[in-house]
Amino acid sequence: MSEKKNKPADAVANIVSLAKRRGFVFQSSEIYGGLNGCWDYGPLGVELLKNIKEEWWKFMTYRDDVEGLDASILMHPKVWEASGHVENFTDPMIDCKQCKARFRLDVLGDSINEKKKEKALAELKNDFKDDASILSKIENKIKNPGDDDPFNLLLEDEQVGKTLLSKLNCPQCGNANTFTDARMFNLMFKTFVGPVEDSGSVVYLRPETAQGIFVNFLNVQSSARQKIPFGIAQIGKAFRNEINTKNFLFRTREFEQMEMQFFINPSADEKWYYYWKEQRINWYKSLGMTEQKLRFHDHEPEKLAHYAKAATDIEYEFPFGWGEIEGIHNRKNYDLTRHEQFSGKSMKYFDDESKEKYIPYVIETSAGASRSFMAFLIDAYYEEEVNGEMRSVLRFHPRLAPIKAAIFPLVNKDGMPEVSREIEKDLRRNFKVFYDDKGAVGRRYRRQDEAGTPFCITVDTQTLEDKTVTVRDRDTMVQERIAIDQLTRYLSDKLLA
Amino acid sequence: MSEKKNKPADAVANIVSLAKRRGFVFQSSEIYGGLNGCWDYGPLGVELLKNIKEEWWKFMTYRDDVEGLDASILMHPKVWEASGHVENFTDPMIDCKQCKARFRLDVLGDSINEKKKEKALAELKNDFKDDASILSKIENKIKNPGDDDPFNLLLEDEQVGKTLLSKLNCPQCGNANTFTDARMFNLMFKTFVGPVEDSGSVVYLRPETAQGIFVNFLNVQSSARQKIPFGIAQIGKAFRNEINTKNFLFRTREFEQMEMQFFINPSADEKWYYYWKEQRINWYKSLGMTEQKLRFHDHEPEKLAHYAKAATDIEYEFPFGWGEIEGIHNRKNYDLTRHEQFSGKSMKYFDDESKEKYIPYVIETSAGASRSFMAFLIDAYYEEEVNGEMRSVLRFHPRLAPIKAAIFPLVNKDGMPEVSREIEKDLRRNFKVFYDDKGAVGRRYRRQDEAGTPFCITVDTQTLEDKTVTVRDRDTMVQERIAIDQLTRYLSDKLLA
Repeated sequence: MSEKKNKPADAVANIVSLAKRRGFVFQSSEIYGGLNGCWDYGPLGVELLKNIKEEWWKFMTYRDDVEGLDASILMHPKVWEASGHVENFTDPMIDCKQCKARFRLDVLGDSINEKKKEKALAELKNDFKDDASILSKIENKIKNPGDDDPFNLLLEDEQVGKTLLSKLNCPQCGNANTFTDARMFNLMFKTFVGPVEDSGSVVYLRPETAQGIFVNFLNVQSSARQKIPFGIAQIGKAFRNEINTKNFLFRTREFEQMEMQFFINPSADEKWYYYWKEQRINWYKSLGMTEQKLRFHDHEPEKLAHYAKAATDIEYEFPFGWGEIEGIHNRKNYDLTRHEQFSGKSMKYFDDESKEKYIPYVIETSAGASRSFMAFLIDAYYEEEVNGEMRSVLRFHPRLAPIKAAIFPLVNKDGMPEVSREIEKDLRRNFKVFYDDKGAVGRRYRRQDEAGTPFCITVDTQTLEDKTVTVRDRDTMVQERIAIDQLTRYLSDKLLA
Repeated sequence: MSEKKNKPADAVANIVSLAKRRGFVFQSSEIYGGLNGCWDYGPLGVELLKNIKEEWWKFMTYRDDVEGLDASILMHPKVWEASGHVENFTDPMIDCKQCKARFRLDVLGDSINEKKKEKALAELKNDFKDDASILSKIENKIKNPGDDDPFNLLLEDEQVGKTLLSKLNCPQCGNANTFTDARMFNLMFKTFVGPVEDSGSVVYLRPETAQGIFVNFLNVQSSARQKIPFGIAQIGKAFRNEINTKNFLFRTREFEQMEMQFFINPSADEKWYYYWKEQRINWYKSLGMTEQKLRFHDHEPEKLAHYAKAATDIEYEFPFGWGEIEGIHNRKNYDLTRHEQFSGKSMKYFDDESKEKYIPYVIETSAGASRSFMAFLIDAYYEEEVNGEMRSVLRFHPRLAPIKAAIFPLVNKDGMPEVSREIEKDLRRNFKVFYDDKGAVGRRYRRQDEAGTPFCITVDTQTLEDKTVTVRDRDTMVQERIAIDQLTRYLSDKLLA
C-alpha cells in the first residue's frame, strides 16, 4: 500500500457527492426541489450522527457531577424575553428596491470587490472631512477591525452606515441607490399555539438548547440531589431563520446541539473554564480528529457578548477555512438572574460548605452535532493509491464508524454462506454489521472502505476446517486470523480502545 | 418479602408525582407556569427514553432489510399538500360566544351529562319525526356507534349536528344557544422561512415522521442498494396543535415517534401486515411489558382512513383505560402515488425477480416514543410490603433501566470508598452507574428501587479480604457474592438476557 494520505483539493465537493451517493446526507425534500438550509441523514449518516451523539453523551454524563436532560423544543414565550432573544437575536437586513434581492447588512461587504470598496471608503472619508470625531472613528475601525472586515463594521455603524450604503450598487442587479434602510430581523422561527393566530398565542422554535437547561436548574438540582459544582447536559434540535445559509451542514436553519451548562461558585470560574476547555478539545482528539486541524480561538475581551466574561471557540480547519465547531463560555450568572427576574422564582443556591447563598455562575460547552458530523466526515476522508489503484476511504474512529464490521463469504457455496450468516447473527446482537456476498472480494473491500467500516471478516475454505476467519483492518489493510468464537471480544476490545 | 405486586388505584397521580420528584418528567417551562402539552425529560427520564429508543432502533434496523433515516422536521410545504394534511388534517371546532371557551365538536358529548344528552336526543328525534330518511340515520348511529359516543357522531353530522348543538348549553358557562358554527381547524403548526411572513414562505412543523421517509424512498433505496421488500426506520419529533391535551404524556403537542415504513410488492401485503403485527407486539413483551395489558384493536373496514386497506392499534391498559401506543397500517401505494403526482418524479420500482414495474405498497409500524415511555413507566411501577415496610419500586427491564447499577461502600472507612470508586470507574466505561455513600444501606436500596436500578453492588469488609462484592437483585432482593473482576461480564450477561 501507499503510505501517502492525500486530501484532495476539492474535498467539500467530493464529500457532498460521496455523502449523497453512499447515503450519509440528502437534501431535505429533494424531490420537491429541496428546502434551503435543511438536510436529511441517510442510512450511513444517521449511524454516524447517532454515534457522535452517544460518545458525547457518555463522555459528558457518565460522571458523578453531570446530569442529563431532554427539554421540549416549544417553550413558554417568556423564556425568550428573559434570555434576551426577543429583543436582541437579530440580524440587520436590507433589500434592493429594484431586484428585490435581500442581504445581511453586516456581511454585505463580502460580496463587493476590493476596488469598489476602496473607492467608496475614500469618498466616505471625504464626505466627513470636516467632522474630526466621525473621521477618527472611521480611521479607527479601518485600523483595528479585529477579525471583521472594516467595511462591514462601517456599514453597521449608525452614523456612517447609511452614507456608505448610498455609494454602493446592488451586488445582484448592479443598480445604484437602490437599498432600503436596514431593518432588524429576528432569527427565531415563530408559530402559534392553539387555534387563534395572534400575539397572545405566539411561541418560538428554540434557537438554542441552553435555555431549556436554565429553566430546569432547580428541578434537576433537587430531584438529582446535586450540589454545586454540577452540570446539566442536553442534546437536541434548535432552529434559526438564517437569511443566508451556506457551506453544506455548516450554517443551516435546522441543526442539532450538544450543550452542557456547568453551575459553579463564582469564585471558581477560571478554574472550571480552563478545565472544560481542555476536556472538550481532548474529546475531538480522542475520537481521532487530526490535532493540527484543531485550535482554540479566544474571543478578545472587547468582542464578548454583554453577559460573557470569557469565551473561546474550538475551530476545525475545513476546506473553506477555519470554522467554529464548539464554543466554551463563562456566562456568569446572567441567565439564572434574568430568569429569576422574569419568573419571580428564586434561582439562588445555598452552599452547605461555604454557607453562602448565591446565584451560580455557569461555564457552558456548546457543540454543534451537525457541524461535528461534518468535521468528522471531512477529517476521515482520504484518497490513496493501493497496488496501483485509487481507493476512497473514511478513516472513522471505530466507535464512530456507521458499520462496525462486514461479513463476506468468499464464495457462495461449500457451507460458507451458512457459517457467514451465523457470524452475522451472533455479532448483530451487539454491533451494527453488514453482510455482503456480491461481486469480487476486492470490490467488497472498496465499498466498505468508502463507508468507513473498520473491520471486514472473510469466511474462506480454512474457516470450514478450523473455525477461524480473516479480519482485515481498514487502515493498515493487514489481515489476521481470528477464531469465530473470539470475534465479539475482538471487536469489543477495538471499540473500547 | 411479600409476593404481592400491588398496583395502587391512583397510579397515574402517583406516577406524575414520582416522575417529578425523582426527575423522570417535568412540566415544560414550569417556572413560567408551564406550556400546555409540552414536557421535559429529567435525568432519569432522559435515560429511560434513550433506552426505549435504542432498543427500538436495534430491533428494527439491526437487520438486513431495514435502513435508518433522520429527516429534518421542517420540510417543503408541497410535502403536506401531497400527503393530504393541508386539506384534511383538521378537527371541527366551536366557540362559546359568551365565555369564549373553545371545544372540539367531535368530543363535546364527553363533557355533557347523560340525562341532558338523552333529553336532547329525544327532542332531536321529535324535530325530524316527519323525515323518515334522517330519522333512520339518527337511529342507525345510535344503534351502531362502533367505539364512538353516538352523541358525538350526531354532532359531527352535517344534516343534524347544528340542530342538536342548538339544544345544548355551554359546558363551561352554562348559557344556552351560544355556540358558533363549527369551523375546521388544521392541526399543523405553521411558521415562516425567510424574513417575509406571507403565504409563499409558510412551512409546517411535521405532524408525523412518515412523510420524511416517503420523500426519501428513492435516495435510500439506491444509496443502500436495497431490493424490495425492505423498510426505512426513523425516530424523531413531531408536532400537533391539539385543541385539548390530556393524560400526562398521552396527548401532547410535541411528541416523539418511532416509525418504520416497509415497502413491498402489492401481492405480499397480507403476509407482511401479519408479520409486523406479531413483531411489534412481541417487542413490548420482550421488554417486560405485562402481556395481559397489551392487546390488538383491529379497525373495522368501514372505519379505515381512505388510504388504508387494514389497520390495527397495539393498545396498553392505562389506569384511565385502553389507549393506543402503536399503529400498524397497510397504507397501500397511497403516499408514493401522491408524491409521484405532486413532484413529477417517478416512484416506480423495477422488480428484478418478477420483472414488474410498480409503485410499492407500504406496511407501516408507527409507535409513540412518548406514549411507550409512559406505558413502560406505569407498567413497571409497584408498591409492595417488604419486612413490614412499604417500598415503591420500578421493575424496569434491565435494558430499559436508567441506571444499570449502584455502588455502595458499606461504611466510609477501611479503604471501602477507594475500592468502590475503582469499581465505579471500571463499570462506567460500559454502563450508566451511580455511586452512593450517604445514609443507611436500607435507605440507599429504597432510593434505587424507586429509580428502577436493577443491581446494587455493596462493598463490605469481606471485599477487602477476597475481592468479592454482594450484588442485590432489585426484584427478588436476593444477594449473591460476585468477584469484582467478573462484574462487567455479570452485568453484560444480564443486559443481553
